[in-house]
Amino acid sequence: MTADELRNLLEAVKAGSASVDDVAKRLAPTAVDLGFATLDFHRRDRCGFPEVILALGKTVDWVEGVVRRMADAGQDCFVTRVDDAQAERLAAKFPTGENDRLARTFWLPLPGARPAPIGDVLVVTAGTGDLPVAHEALNTVRVMGVTASLIADVGVAGIHRILKHRERLTAADAIIVCAGMDGALPSVVGGLVDCPVIAVPTSIGYGASFGGLAALLTMLNSCSAGVAVVNIDAGFKAGYVAALTARRIAKAR
Amino acid sequence: MTADELRNLLEAVKAGSASVDDVAKRLAPTAVDLGFATLDFHRRDRCGFPEVILALGKTVDWVEGVVRRMADAGQDCFVTRVDDAQAERLAAKFPTGENDRLARTFWLPLPGARPAPIGDVLVVTAGTGDLPVAHEALNTVRVMGVTASLIADVGVAGIHRILKHRERLTAADAIIVCAGMDGALPSVVGGLVDCPVIAVPTSIGYGASFGGLAALLTMLNSCSAGVAVVNIDAGFKAGYVAALTARRIAKAR
Amino acid sequence: MTADELRNLLEAVKAGSASVDDVAKRLAPTAVDLGFATLDFHRRDRCGFPEVILALGKTVDWVEGVVRRMADAGQDCFVTRVDDAQAERLAAKFPTGENDRLARTFWLPLPGARPAPIGDVLVVTAGTGDLPVAHEALNTVRVMGVTASLIADVGVAGIHRILKHRERLTAADAIIVCAGMDGALPSVVGGLVDCPVIAVPTSIGYGASFGGLAALLTMLNSCSAGVAVVNIDAGFKAGYVAALTARRIAKAR
Amino acid sequence: MTADELRNLLEAVKAGSASVDDVAKRLAPTAVDLGFATLDFHRRDRCGFPEVILALGKTVDWVEGVVRRMADAGQDCFVTRVDDAQAERLAAKFPTGENDRLARTFWLPLPGARPAPIGDVLVVTAGTGDLPVAHEALNTVRVMGVTASLIADVGVAGIHRILKHRERLTAADAIIVCAGMDGALPSVVGGLVDCPVIAVPTSIGYGASFGGLAALLTMLNSCSAGVAVVNIDAGFKAGYVAALTARRIAKAR
Amino acid sequence: MTADELRNLLEAVKAGSASVDDVAKRLAPTAVDLGFATLDFHRRDRCGFPEVILALGKTVDWVEGVVRRMADAGQDCFVTRVDDAQAERLAAKFPTGENDRLARTFWLPLPGARPAPIGDVLVVTAGTGDLPVAHEALNTVRVMGVTASLIADVGVAGIHRILKHRERLTAADAIIVCAGMDGALPSVVGGLVDCPVIAVPTSIGYGASFGGLAALLTMLNSCSAGVAVVNIDAGFKAGYVAALTARRIAKAR
Amino acid sequence: MTADELRNLLEAVKAGSASVDDVAKRLAPTAVDLGFATLDFHRRDRCGFPEVILALGKTVDWVEGVVRRMADAGQDCFVTRVDDAQAERLAAKFPTGENDRLARTFWLPLPGARPAPIGDVLVVTAGTGDLPVAHEALNTVRVMGVTASLIADVGVAGIHRILKHRERLTAADAIIVCAGMDGALPSVVGGLVDCPVIAVPTSIGYGASFGGLAALLTMLNSCSAGVAVVNIDAGFKAGYVAALTARRIAKAR
Amino acid sequence: MTADELRNLLEAVKAGSASVDDVAKRLAPTAVDLGFATLDFHRRDRCGFPEVILALGKTVDWVEGVVRRMADAGQDCFVTRVDDAQAERLAAKFPTGENDRLARTFWLPLPGARPAPIGDVLVVTAGTGDLPVAHEALNTVRVMGVTASLIADVGVAGIHRILKHRERLTAADAIIVCAGMDGALPSVVGGLVDCPVIAVPTSIGYGASFGGLAALLTMLNSCSAGVAVVNIDAGFKAGYVAALTARRIAKAR
Amino acid sequence: MTADELRNLLEAVKAGSASVDDVAKRLAPTAVDLGFATLDFHRRDRCGFPEVILALGKTVDWVEGVVRRMADAGQDCFVTRVDDAQAERLAAKFPTGENDRLARTFWLPLPGARPAPIGDVLVVTAGTGDLPVAHEALNTVRVMGVTASLIADVGVAGIHRILKHRERLTAADAIIVCAGMDGALPSVVGGLVDCPVIAVPTSIGYGASFGGLAALLTMLNSCSAGVAVVNIDAGFKAGYVAALTARRIAKAR
Repeated sequence: MTADELRNLLEAVKAGSASVDDVAKRLAPTAVDLGFATLDFHRRDRCGFPEVILALGKTVDWVEGVVRRMADAGQDCFVTRVDDAQAERLAAKFPTGENDRLARTFWLPLPGARPAPIGDVLVVTAGTGDLPVAHEALNTVRVMGVTASLIADVGVAGIHRILKHRERLTAADAIIVCAGMDGALPSVVGGLVDCPVIAVPTSIGYGASFGGLAALLTMLNSCSAGVAVVNIDAGFKAGYVAALTARRIAKAR
Repeated sequence: MTADELRNLLEAVKAGSASVDDVAKRLAPTAVDLGFATLDFHRRDRCGFPEVILALGKTVDWVEGVVRRMADAGQDCFVTRVDDAQAERLAAKFPTGENDRLARTFWLPLPGARPAPIGDVLVVTAGTGDLPVAHEALNTVRVMGVTASLIADVGVAGIHRILKHRERLTAADAIIVCAGMDGALPSVVGGLVDCPVIAVPTSIGYGASFGGLAALLTMLNSCSAGVAVVNIDAGFKAGYVAALTARRIAKAR
Repeated sequence: MTADELRNLLEAVKAGSASVDDVAKRLAPTAVDLGFATLDFHRRDRCGFPEVILALGKTVDWVEGVVRRMADAGQDCFVTRVDDAQAERLAAKFPTGENDRLARTFWLPLPGARPAPIGDVLVVTAGTGDLPVAHEALNTVRVMGVTASLIADVGVAGIHRILKHRERLTAADAIIVCAGMDGALPSVVGGLVDCPVIAVPTSIGYGASFGGLAALLTMLNSCSAGVAVVNIDAGFKAGYVAALTARRIAKAR
Repeated sequence: MTADELRNLLEAVKAGSASVDDVAKRLAPTAVDLGFATLDFHRRDRCGFPEVILALGKTVDWVEGVVRRMADAGQDCFVTRVDDAQAERLAAKFPTGENDRLARTFWLPLPGARPAPIGDVLVVTAGTGDLPVAHEALNTVRVMGVTASLIADVGVAGIHRILKHRERLTAADAIIVCAGMDGALPSVVGGLVDCPVIAVPTSIGYGASFGGLAALLTMLNSCSAGVAVVNIDAGFKAGYVAALTARRIAKAR
Repeated sequence: MTADELRNLLEAVKAGSASVDDVAKRLAPTAVDLGFATLDFHRRDRCGFPEVILALGKTVDWVEGVVRRMADAGQDCFVTRVDDAQAERLAAKFPTGENDRLARTFWLPLPGARPAPIGDVLVVTAGTGDLPVAHEALNTVRVMGVTASLIADVGVAGIHRILKHRERLTAADAIIVCAGMDGALPSVVGGLVDCPVIAVPTSIGYGASFGGLAALLTMLNSCSAGVAVVNIDAGFKAGYVAALTARRIAKAR
Repeated sequence: MTADELRNLLEAVKAGSASVDDVAKRLAPTAVDLGFATLDFHRRDRCGFPEVILALGKTVDWVEGVVRRMADAGQDCFVTRVDDAQAERLAAKFPTGENDRLARTFWLPLPGARPAPIGDVLVVTAGTGDLPVAHEALNTVRVMGVTASLIADVGVAGIHRILKHRERLTAADAIIVCAGMDGALPSVVGGLVDCPVIAVPTSIGYGASFGGLAALLTMLNSCSAGVAVVNIDAGFKAGYVAALTARRIAKAR
Repeated sequence: MTADELRNLLEAVKAGSASVDDVAKRLAPTAVDLGFATLDFHRRDRCGFPEVILALGKTVDWVEGVVRRMADAGQDCFVTRVDDAQAERLAAKFPTGENDRLARTFWLPLPGARPAPIGDVLVVTAGTGDLPVAHEALNTVRVMGVTASLIADVGVAGIHRILKHRERLTAADAIIVCAGMDGALPSVVGGLVDCPVIAVPTSIGYGASFGGLAALLTMLNSCSAGVAVVNIDAGFKAGYVAALTARRIAKAR
Repeated sequence: MTADELRNLLEAVKAGSASVDDVAKRLAPTAVDLGFATLDFHRRDRCGFPEVILALGKTVDWVEGVVRRMADAGQDCFVTRVDDAQAERLAAKFPTGENDRLARTFWLPLPGARPAPIGDVLVVTAGTGDLPVAHEALNTVRVMGVTASLIADVGVAGIHRILKHRERLTAADAIIVCAGMDGALPSVVGGLVDCPVIAVPTSIGYGASFGGLAALLTMLNSCSAGVAVVNIDAGFKAGYVAALTARRIAKAR
């Protein structure tokens, strides 16, 4: 907000044409303090999607508490990196939620019908071992209301495998490419299309893959211009960025 | 191309309903061998923009040769990471080109009128020292036909500086955030908007910034979901991804 | 001690105006050899607080032995990084001690009333997962006789969460900020206050967080000037430095 | 600011008991846009000292422009990491400023008498080669109005050199220790005093010092509890944190 | 394929002298989509050996599924990095396969007699602990139809141990040297022979071996010219490269 | 040599059937001490090619001295990493030598006709900037008496560029692939052929390429099995290994 | 052996004045091939102590086999890095051996009286957690026939603890200093004595100690000249080097 | 000094049987403060050799000042890492000093005859490029009064080169081995002798040698037990440790 806009707002308050409550809310968006967490219920307004919960490092009680409070506040609740103990608790307490143990995600949508998915995001993996990360991405795209589909195990050692999907690649709004080991696939995909490619390095590999570092560096140095990168194994983030892109495009249609 | 599509194409060739030349071109896109470079004139068709030349590691003669061949082929020519000697040669040989020495780019558009720019990409920097990278991004967005604007030096140590630009941030199709040192700004911006944020770590900093590594890691670990990252100082790549995004949105309008 | 001071001291010994024992103690502070440990009972005199025991790498017997000897010597005993087996033994042998399993600390104060806490240290976390480290810091500050309070989960992805605590931030003598992942919060806090900010990178994160390295580098490169850093997950050290600062201020009052 | 405080402020605006301008200024602190820089004139109010200019990565024109605008706004101006060309320009344009070429700082105080310095900060170096960093720290402390003094070249290879300064060490409000190579000195100093020790790793060394990384890691892992760390060669940051501490103590007196 | 060759092929299709099916197969090699894997049955034609399955990161079901499909397609099936659960399943489902638990490989050859092995590959280890990696290499060489033999535990600390094998070394077509810790053996071997030496760093070691990184760097920096390197613990890759070399030589005989 | 062989040799000496000189030469191969260098004239016998001189870190006098002594001893002399001063001296002193300033090599063959080159090594580069490294490899292959040819600038961002060379790729005895940035090309090439692929990471790139480290890691983690790797920019080593391979094959023909 | 010496030896063989067996043994020292290990029984002659067995990475059978063969050959047998399963087997099979589970060593001396220990090696630790490594060093020194003693937990945070041992420090032939965390103690010790100091970084620490890397770098960069370093946790190697030194000195006496 | 010894000393002071000055000197060894340096004139007494000056990071004036003060105090003065400007100044001001520009050392001995050198230290290099580091070591050994000799360029790629020097190797009191690139030579030497081997990694190499890091790691992980390591290029430190060892042995003779 510019200084002028702020001043106009205050003048409106002074003149009584704007309510103190509305202006206060705008200037200080809601945040709910649970002691162990400060929930950001305003994020849906700012970013178009409620706060997503990262279960990593949280006790089972904390995870349950946050999900409960989100649901009570009428917000969709999506949790990533759910470990076995957390998943068991969530399944017991929120039986309508969807636990995906391959992707390690939990999804508790608001009751009621959801709008038809929009857009078109394609998730591609170089190998079979990249599938858990790919499914985290797929689930993220879908809970954000966007259509997502998968092409698995088409790494560059057999280059014809990806080339035969050219039609599907060029049709997508955004493409997510998950690859471990040499992380070379996004460079090939990026050279075939005119949409953003979100590359996800995975920790699949051994030795000098250093837990995905090799693939991460490959992707950051991609010789294809249209490739952006997210953290190692960050299927969620790739899904989020791709869905934001696809929603923007779909809304413009 | 699927096996079926390929077979159909070959049947068409056999039947004479498709010319050998057309099919050959489709199956084997053009590439021109200069001895020291193999130009990919087909990239404009695949990726929506001609091959961009990275001047790094090329002799002055090689750079001139590539630009000449691109221009002769009727393709726009954009060169990045142009050093002083290369810039001087290009200025002498292609006087209508635009040398931007702050951004280290060279731009030789095709003669004739260009279409009005579309879309809206915002480039933000945390500090003044990030400006060369930001200008590389701005130039890239613009040569790709997309509108770009700049907000400079609004890093998080004075958080009100970025907050007062909220309106402009939420209006953009995509936002590029360039930051060195702690690289913290993209996380703040990502928490304010619902469009993709492309983060560019810069090599501004000293000591444990390790030439931009610190900012790179910060951005990869951003606590904001909608942030994707490109290589250190890769203003060009950020601009390319942002422009692809904005063009997709603009075309859908 | 200067050469002159030493000479004066020796002259006093010679003249009989200073006792050999007193001077010997001053020149050679006490250290008690347990075979596996050399306890530094003089540290309380030098540093204002008894030696703190790091349980890491010690056998259960060694930890018990050190605590026993400290208590026998009439010194408060604070232990950090206590694992489950060590905690169980300490609970069994020193039932009046306080075991905090979230913070992994053990606290065996001297019997008798303690002075009222002084000063004002604020501990802030970016996320919920940073709480164990924050509690190690809180406990450290408190055993050193200083008041400590907590603000949890106010990371920069929802920037309004920290901004609404401005009053508490500016009131503190020193602020500890614990953050994993991008580690961006200390830069924002440092830009809001005029007291020292002690940043604690935590190992919360995945992939390219490299066990807290990313947050550590972020904090070392903070664009806010008033930010100093301690080791990854070193809640104890941050608490110690903050408490030293607050005690100095409180004593000057 | 809490939601209640904000609401009270707005009620005051509504009631006319607070001026729109005053409230606007408080809610949206001043920031001046120079195109290449956004100056944060409000920082003096928040952090107790005006924005300090990092010359690194700025053109000579940008540095001059920022200093000019700061001076015009009636703010003290302190610049660090000034290279030779920048220093020459600043000397020419602001002849009353102080250029310290060893410390690479520039200082342009406001005209008029300055208050007497307060507090007591001690800067210690392990070697002679650490002096440029130490002088950056000394200058920073002094421009912030705090007394600073120096003990040079007392590294641990001759441990008696630091031990003979015990009296001065224990008298300080805060101690800055600059060390390259093994970076061991802060651990020794931290074990002798009860005030915060700010450790500055320097890039002095060769081979496996990796530009100061070895000393940085040493300091982060200090076995003395009261040691916090800043970036490699960051004399400025150490000076800033130490001065904040000393000012707090001095003000409480 | 050159543009001319492609055009000739298409002309042949057009003229009916080449069948659409044959040409389609050549232009689009077979790939079978299992949903979780895309099998590259064409690799045997291109690379001289069927796709080798890396079990790492695959579920037991996926591994079984891939092996089944390979066997059904009449292709030899070799699996590496087989963990205990996968080995147990494979043993149960494919009782004629060979499980080597030291090398962690599984080998399911096609039924029927196999041709006599050709060529001569020598596998050498610096220590006893390198044997699992060496056996992965030995198995790989053998399933590719090449003779392989082993010399174990002849590291450079007792240099006469390797020197007494000079005759065998100079007779080999290619030599694989597996070494952990200092990784020095390949440099010595490389200086004794005129055939390619494939160096395999192993993760045997501790401390600053960093999981084999030290040996990897040693080997990359070998002062012997004829040494190429594969990934840490990559016995499979070394075996593959050595076998390709030996087969080429044997076929030329 | 086995113990038996040694004993036989000694018995032959004892019996007078072997001359002391011959046996001494066999047991202690020649090495000539120049004070600053110990020349290994025996290497040609062991490894099939004379010692190659690495000019890096040698004074101009040392380089000249070594070349002189090699030539005097009737050995071909090949020097790599020749800097400008060294090249100038070598050109002045050995006018018949070949200075290649792009490849930074110097070649002083023995006088007289050389045998016709044998074998077939292909050198491929991903980009134009990789050419200096590629030419070091080409020169190395050629001085070792093997035929070498070049395909330049066929990186994976335009995948059709490499695919159109399939015929030449499959015909080679060994393939060297030089690539910087993402280093992805060897994985694609390795998936197309059944000969060894020697991958050379180059230091072309910026930011997170870390001087070729990114490409090195990519190649070590190649998803194609037949890829071995040499040091960053080590065109010489790749050429050496490839030539050894090709010579073995050619000799078997 | 020089060429002349070799020729003399051969002449002696020829003349019959030297036996073929003796000369063969000298030229080709014994090595016994167990299939999985090649034992170097000649090392005792060359290095003054039999081969020491590193149990790391060896199966229980391999360890037992090697110890058995060493004992059968009449050589003392010392094993390091013995895990629990290996220790149990060794205790069962060689009941006269000494298992030290803190140091993880096993010692099976030859039967019969041993000579009185010679020399004087001092082992010092910075903390209690460094004791396992220190005991590995102590045991190594002792099995090599040298006197060793221990000073524990005298790190630099209480500098008087080490200073009070000055007399013992200056009396030693060689000093081993084990330290984790900041690794600062060897620099202080090195500044107090005129004998070699062997520094052993230990993996005690957390966060940015990176498993002992921080202490390793500290020690490599020690500001004291007389400090050499061994691998992280390499108590064995430090003991070996110190014992070699002490034996040389004792033998000269 | 023990508490008892200290008490006895003080009793002697009290009784007048020890002078205050003598005791003060013993308790507080001399250190001379030059403002920019604190000279440790007591080091010769403690460590057997005067303080050695590291010129790195010192101004020309500082270096001259320190040398002047050392000479005035009647102490030998040895300076390492002398750059060209420093060497020129030292040559002009101290014409009797010895400037060695290859080793970058300066040596200003006290006037008068020096005792005959004692002991026997051998310096070995793997390559010619390691000679500057080797000469720094040689000079250090010699100024400490110990005999030193050199064997150059005997790296492991021609293993016979080092083996022919076995006699000299086994005769030395201590051996220094300088090696860059793969750093493999110390492991071979360590396996041939029973004296301490001090390994010096040098920065000779390129690519993945990372400025000597590869050689450093190799040496730390040496499979030979008797190898200790110093910093990259630290010829001085290796010389110092070797000379301390040789002096101890020679004095015992």
